[in-house]
Formats: sequence, C-alpha cells, structure tokens
Amino acid sequence: MKVRVYVSLKNGVLDPQGRAIHHSLEGLGFAGVNDVRVGRFIELEVADTVTDASLEDMCRKLLANTVIENFRIERVAS
Amino acid sequence: MKVRVYVSLKNGVLDPQGRAIHHSLEGLGFAGVNDVRVGRFIELEVADTVTDASLEDMCRKLLANTVIENFRIERVAS
Repeated sequence: MKVRVYVSLKNGVLDPQGRAIHHSLEGLGFAGVNDVRVGRFIELEVADTVTDASLEDMCRKLLANTVIENFRIERVAS
Repeated sequence: MKVRVYVSLKNGVLDPQGRAIHHSLEGLGFAGVNDVRVGRFIELEVADTVTDASLEDMCRKLLANTVIENFRIERVAS
C-alpha cells in the first residue's frame, strides 16, 4: 500500500526557502505571486499490516520535526 | 488563490534522501516499509489572474528540474 506523508512548516515559522523562491519568481518576471511556502512529502510503500498508529509514530520520531512542522498522512489506494 | 506544485524525482532516478529515511526507519524498528521516495511541494498564493500556462512556466523555469523531476500543479479552492 502506498502512503504519502506531507510535512510543512507551521504557520509563523520563517521559511527562507519559500522566500528565496518568491524572490526568484519576481526576478524572472512572474507577477501576481503573493506568498510561497515550501514543504516536502515522503512516499512510503508499506505492507498492508502497517497501522495508522505506526505511521504516526514514524512521523513523530523521524519524518517530521513536530516543534516547527505539521504533518499529514494520506493513504493512497494502490 | 492557492496553488500547490508537487515535485518528485522521476522513476529510475536515485533518491539518496529516501534511502537514508528507509534505512533509519528500519534502524528505529519499523517493519513493513518496502520503499521510500522523497519529494517536495511548493504552496503558492497567487492572484486569480495567474494562468495555468504561467504556472507551468514557473515550474519549468524554476520550481522543478525537468531533467530528473516531474511536477504536478493543483489548484486549491481558497
């Protein structure tokens, strides 16, 4: 089964990477962009026996830094 | 309007970051994980006047490296 974990910075946490992209888009002449935030996603191919609790545990222990990041787990039909 | 751009490595392109995560998950004792791939997403807050063509242009010029990466654009109702 395929699982996607989306990790994004919490609101209020400075996002220098997003800022750099925003700045570059303006430099390239793209108008109308008001804000840019960057996150990452992790695509896991897991056995069907892996539980939601176990997935959340993975996020808390490794995939996300919960001090500054939020995560969202999404099971994808495979 | 909010737009999300998902950027992921093309199939066949080596993903050392995913491999490292996979290895770490195993080290932490999580069983049943068969594969891990890592991607990123960029959340843009854009004016309603920004066209799909313009968004694709942003991806090709800055957000994704189309030699090794695929991208997918998703408009989110705001």
